Amino acid sequence: MSKILAALMPTPLAAIEVREFPEPELEPNSALMEIDLSEVCGTDVHLHRGRLAGVPYPLIPGHVSVGRLSKIRGRLLDIEGKPFFEGDRVTFLDVHKTCNACWHCLVAKATTRCPHRKVYGITYGLQDGISGGWAQKLYLKPETRCLRLDGVEAERFMAGGCSLPTALHATSRAGVSLGDTVLVLGSGPVALSTIILARMLGAFRVLCIGAPEHRLKAAAEVGASATLNIETHTEEERGQWVLEQTNGRGADVTIEATGAPVAVVQAMRFTRDAGRVCIVGQYTDHGEVAFNPHLDLNQKHLDVRGCWGSDFSHFYLGVQLMADPLRSQPWSHLKLERYGLNQANAALRDVASGKAIKALIDPQL
Amino acid sequence: MSKILAALMPTPLAAIEVREFPEPELEPNSALMEIDLSEVCGTDVHLHRGRLAGVPYPLIPGHVSVGRLSKIRGRLLDIEGKPFFEGDRVTFLDVHKTCNACWHCLVAKATTRCPHRKVYGITYGLQDGISGGWAQKLYLKPETRCLRLDGVEAERFMAGGCSLPTALHATSRAGVSLGDTVLVLGSGPVALSTIILARMLGAFRVLCIGAPEHRLKAAAEVGASATLNIETHTEEERGQWVLEQTNGRGADVTIEATGAPVAVVQAMRFTRDAGRVCIVGQYTDHGEVAFNPHLDLNQKHLDVRGCWGSDFSHFYLGVQLMADPLRSQPWSHLKLERYGLNQANAALRDVASGKAIKALIDPQL
Amino acid sequence: MSKILAALMPTPLAAIEVREFPEPELEPNSALMEIDLSEVCGTDVHLHRGRLAGVPYPLIPGHVSVGRLSKIRGRLLDIEGKPFFEGDRVTFLDVHKTCNACWHCLVAKATTRCPHRKVYGITYGLQDGISGGWAQKLYLKPETRCLRLDGVEAERFMAGGCSLPTALHATSRAGVSLGDTVLVLGSGPVALSTIILARMLGAFRVLCIGAPEHRLKAAAEVGASATLNIETHTEEERGQWVLEQTNGRGADVTIEATGAPVAVVQAMRFTRDAGRVCIVGQYTDHGEVAFNPHLDLNQKHLDVRGCWGSDFSHFYLGVQLMADPLRSQPWSHLKLERYGLNQANAALRDVASGKAIKALIDPQL
Amino acid sequence: MSKILAALMPTPLAAIEVREFPEPELEPNSALMEIDLSEVCGTDVHLHRGRLAGVPYPLIPGHVSVGRLSKIRGRLLDIEGKPFFEGDRVTFLDVHKTCNACWHCLVAKATTRCPHRKVYGITYGLQDGISGGWAQKLYLKPETRCLRLDGVEAERFMAGGCSLPTALHATSRAGVSLGDTVLVLGSGPVALSTIILARMLGAFRVLCIGAPEHRLKAAAEVGASATLNIETHTEEERGQWVLEQTNGRGADVTIEATGAPVAVVQAMRFTRDAGRVCIVGQYTDHGEVAFNPHLDLNQKHLDVRGCWGSDFSHFYLGVQLMADPLRSQPWSHLKLERYGLNQANAALRDVASGKAIKALIDPQL
Repeated sequence: MSKILAALMPTPLAAIEVREFPEPELEPNSALMEIDLSEVCGTDVHLHRGRLAGVPYPLIPGHVSVGRLSKIRGRLLDIEGKPFFEGDRVTFLDVHKTCNACWHCLVAKATTRCPHRKVYGITYGLQDGISGGWAQKLYLKPETRCLRLDGVEAERFMAGGCSLPTALHATSRAGVSLGDTVLVLGSGPVALSTIILARMLGAFRVLCIGAPEHRLKAAAEVGASATLNIETHTEEERGQWVLEQTNGRGADVTIEATGAPVAVVQAMRFTRDAGRVCIVGQYTDHGEVAFNPHLDLNQKHLDVRGCWGSDFSHFYLGVQLMADPLRSQPWSHLKLERYGLNQANAALRDVASGKAIKALIDPQL
Repeated sequence: MSKILAALMPTPLAAIEVREFPEPELEPNSALMEIDLSEVCGTDVHLHRGRLAGVPYPLIPGHVSVGRLSKIRGRLLDIEGKPFFEGDRVTFLDVHKTCNACWHCLVAKATTRCPHRKVYGITYGLQDGISGGWAQKLYLKPETRCLRLDGVEAERFMAGGCSLPTALHATSRAGVSLGDTVLVLGSGPVALSTIILARMLGAFRVLCIGAPEHRLKAAAEVGASATLNIETHTEEERGQWVLEQTNGRGADVTIEATGAPVAVVQAMRFTRDAGRVCIVGQYTDHGEVAFNPHLDLNQKHLDVRGCWGSDFSHFYLGVQLMADPLRSQPWSHLKLERYGLNQANAALRDVASGKAIKALIDPQL
Repeated sequence: MSKILAALMPTPLAAIEVREFPEPELEPNSALMEIDLSEVCGTDVHLHRGRLAGVPYPLIPGHVSVGRLSKIRGRLLDIEGKPFFEGDRVTFLDVHKTCNACWHCLVAKATTRCPHRKVYGITYGLQDGISGGWAQKLYLKPETRCLRLDGVEAERFMAGGCSLPTALHATSRAGVSLGDTVLVLGSGPVALSTIILARMLGAFRVLCIGAPEHRLKAAAEVGASATLNIETHTEEERGQWVLEQTNGRGADVTIEATGAPVAVVQAMRFTRDAGRVCIVGQYTDHGEVAFNPHLDLNQKHLDVRGCWGSDFSHFYLGVQLMADPLRSQPWSHLKLERYGLNQANAALRDVASGKAIKALIDPQL
Repeated sequence: MSKILAALMPTPLAAIEVREFPEPELEPNSALMEIDLSEVCGTDVHLHRGRLAGVPYPLIPGHVSVGRLSKIRGRLLDIEGKPFFEGDRVTFLDVHKTCNACWHCLVAKATTRCPHRKVYGITYGLQDGISGGWAQKLYLKPETRCLRLDGVEAERFMAGGCSLPTALHATSRAGVSLGDTVLVLGSGPVALSTIILARMLGAFRVLCIGAPEHRLKAAAEVGASATLNIETHTEEERGQWVLEQTNGRGADVTIEATGAPVAVVQAMRFTRDAGRVCIVGQYTDHGEVAFNPHLDLNQKHLDVRGCWGSDFSHFYLGVQLMADPLRSQPWSHLKLERYGLNQANAALRDVASGKAIKALIDPQL
């Protein structure tokens, strides 16, 4: 039986190591996927720093991946009920086991808060098999939701990567609509996808506050009407800038995608009365921040919406979007850096430092 | 021409004085209203302490009042286009001059944020005439929206008073619906009206955290399923109590009606994942408070909604509600204290101290 | 092995026959439920008349039932993840196999339109085992969603029966809210539950047009503010009556629960401009009806909402509601008629004729 | 005093006549607008055929117009509260007198159903002054809402014309969102604007069924993904075509913009389960049509939404949109035909026959 090389994160802060694993036995209705590309994203940096709860180290990271079904045991069906075949090019929803049987799933219909939810490459560890994409092959457990990538370029799809369903969820939850001036805080991958989507939803203007300059340049290339460097402008200057761009009122909608707690408060302050604020960047705990409930929330009659995770509908829409060469074109501006399995440590470093906008593991390198 | 006695607030902190004013000339399509009862509420305490912006002292307080149209010049029409007559028992919407011509009114449809909005007894001062209800008669300017009080008892209506439209707005914005467990923070008039309305909207359970005991008793009388004294329980104990009452999940909906900034953060913490929080108590600036955006907002996938002011639709619904003897019955539990014009200082003191749940100025006393 | 008696519907229009079946072998994670009461509703009449598509005759009818878990093989978990035990009093969601894997479930989130959905006693036939409640015992397949009935009276629960989740879905979809005047067309079980729920959601007035008189009496007893007999009033008289009750405007919300196509058009006509209409009574095909799109829909700026089936959240809420003695009290007005297994034909006749508002099969009789 | 030439519609069916009128006296806060271009649309054809209710013949048609403020008496303020000056290039909202004082405006917030609403060129007749745009100058009554056209080309704006706010209202009410397949029934001006807007809101595919061929060509030019000629395909073929384009499910959203009652039923049939249908084309009474409430509405769990008129927010958004050269570019595909005042009869004929997609009166010709 053949062997599989994979990049293992043994514990937080320890170096990633390439290891060899035996090819797994397949359960009924499971499959093996040969990986073409797998993402290295901010979540992986958090993983490596030990900032996420519920991670069963050691694990093989890599939650969004594209590749090919190399072996299927039993039946694997698509969303239309049609079978997948060996050789099909696919991606899969990293979220697994949303249970459809608990109070969160069935009563609150808040499936991203289902307590049974597991995520490949994050809350599945080595004990669960080769369950991350930084590997030559990955084990697709039964009931993993795959989608065909017919007509979707691997690189284009990965330029969206995990930021795409997140940004789809955030823009939908923010209620971006025709004519809005949307302010995006941050200029990382989620922010960039958010800018593209806000334009696609009819926003007339999209403002972006972020850093460093090369990311703001990317923001402008993908559709930001105006950008401001957070590192060279004080909060007051930034607030002033937003007012100047918005007839003195503030943005109709602000989407926070930074990770910095203080940005949440600025999101409220930079938004107009009766506007909407969506908080999607606070994926890990970076501590507290102070705000003024009277001035920042109540008197402004604001809607502030936390946005956690994403579900199959966002993943599905993302794949559909990337299948459209014209609509997905803005993502071609995002520069991709490829790393081999044995360069995973460098990939993590480059993502952490912001040097790489989007890093990919390519197991063929 | 006859004289009108009214209670004047000369400046913040100064004692209220009863003064005599000449009966005003009526503009076309204006009226004079003989006051039966006018409210003394928390806003008046804020006014007296100088905590509200844009108040043109000196002014005659009293924004929600009931009485009788004693003189009409020209035509005053009701919402069905039918004329009012002298002698009609009425109340009126304290908010005046929502302009229907600005960006906030016409584009954002956020009429409670219209910059032209004026409020009788708050942002109308003596310079605008006898424009507060702590008076024998009040001047109803053209385009003031009146409603008939046929079949509505004055005392029942005033037990709701200004807290009723506020609570109607808050419960509507919070999206209370059938089966919800609603947590109300606070036990003042807005909180009490909120409890009643949450039950009326189908909440299965309403929890209330407030103080002092006599208000919690009132909360229970008007429909709270369980109450907890904030003064005798730590934040941790309160959080624990909410979890015990909610299957370990937190409230479906929390409505903050306290005025204390820290309550806003507790509202988020005491609410279940994917729940809704409405902030209606932060009417004045009491400073900042710290929260954790990751734990309190983003990961919880919360909706946090500021709620500012109220509009005609809330006022109209409130009058309809009070016209129903059965539905308005819970408000009969709220004890009313009457004060003459020359007892306005005592009324303010009793409201500020929480001694009176609801204080009324009765100019006939 | 013991035997189970059950009432079998061999084909449409044929008489129901009581037959004896062997107790089934239990698959892993399945159970046997001893039936206390099972409903005979309008759907069963449709079944018997052959008016429903996709029914695999012969079948054992009875989709909503209460009873006791008499045997469990493996694990059966409740919505909180806690196990059920033999002896537990339960009911179960008649809808089974909503797949959580298809486009309707995962993308459109229209789970009541999932093509894999099966319904006990309707689209499960004898070939699927003892899968209807008109039996001494019923076979609960794996992944059937059960709820405990602790503290819920069997008779009270069955007075709601299958009409309760339907009415919960309809009132939620109709957006009934505080202050509404709600018009309910029809006076059968769904209509009666709708009346109760509309009041519980804060409707100030509920009007009901139906027949015969004894049902209108029931409508008034459970909360209708005014009723009108459809058999003794022309359409014009009925329209006039609604206008008189609504200040000349029509109902804010109309919920059609009749089954007659013409009622759908009247629902539009009897509703005010910019109001909402929910169509829940057109469960089977009774042919076409003509309407005027300009006058009845476009110019009125109406929202017309079809409402199909119900899901777990409605079922769950219904059980919670029936666990509250006070809130469920209105259902005690609905007279229940009990029939033994061998009286099923009489039960169907009495439901079809409207003689019985609510008929129940009691296998112990 | 100078004279004003205007085209008068004396009665239904009578020929339009050019007449000379004296320049009116201006009330305080009113203005005179020199007309550059005024639209001839389907509504004008309806007017001329006598198909609209409440029209005070004789009247000067022309409800959407662009021009220049040639004389102002008193103050005319824009939505930001800044004054207009003589010489400003403007357009104005044809809807006047939405009262902000009645039940429809203040309680139902259904301002397009305000009974006091008047429309220039439709429900204002000659008795109300020169109140239509088929004139050299038009009288802008006090409280008419004007918007500056700085940077907006007159021809580009008129290519949108009255169909733009209507289409903005319809797409908003239909809830078009990212990824939708939108079916547009009709290929007249409202349909064409709807196609453009649906794309702008993120629809992945827009299908159009209409006629004749030159309009379908325009539909494709402005963004329809696929078109079908209604004149050469049976209803069954059209339904089949929609299914083929939508994975066998029907459109996510259908917007009816035809005027033919039968299209309303087809809109329901061509839409997927749990989809949305917006009916905006039934502006006049063309009689009844039959549908099947079970199959077409209830079982499909559809949302069917009538859409009447438009309000200031749509008009404002339309002007903003047309100020963006890139976003408004699709409207440049719509061919405009100009007619002098004395060619108004020909203009009406060409609009009625569908020969002209968009006809304009140019009083300078």
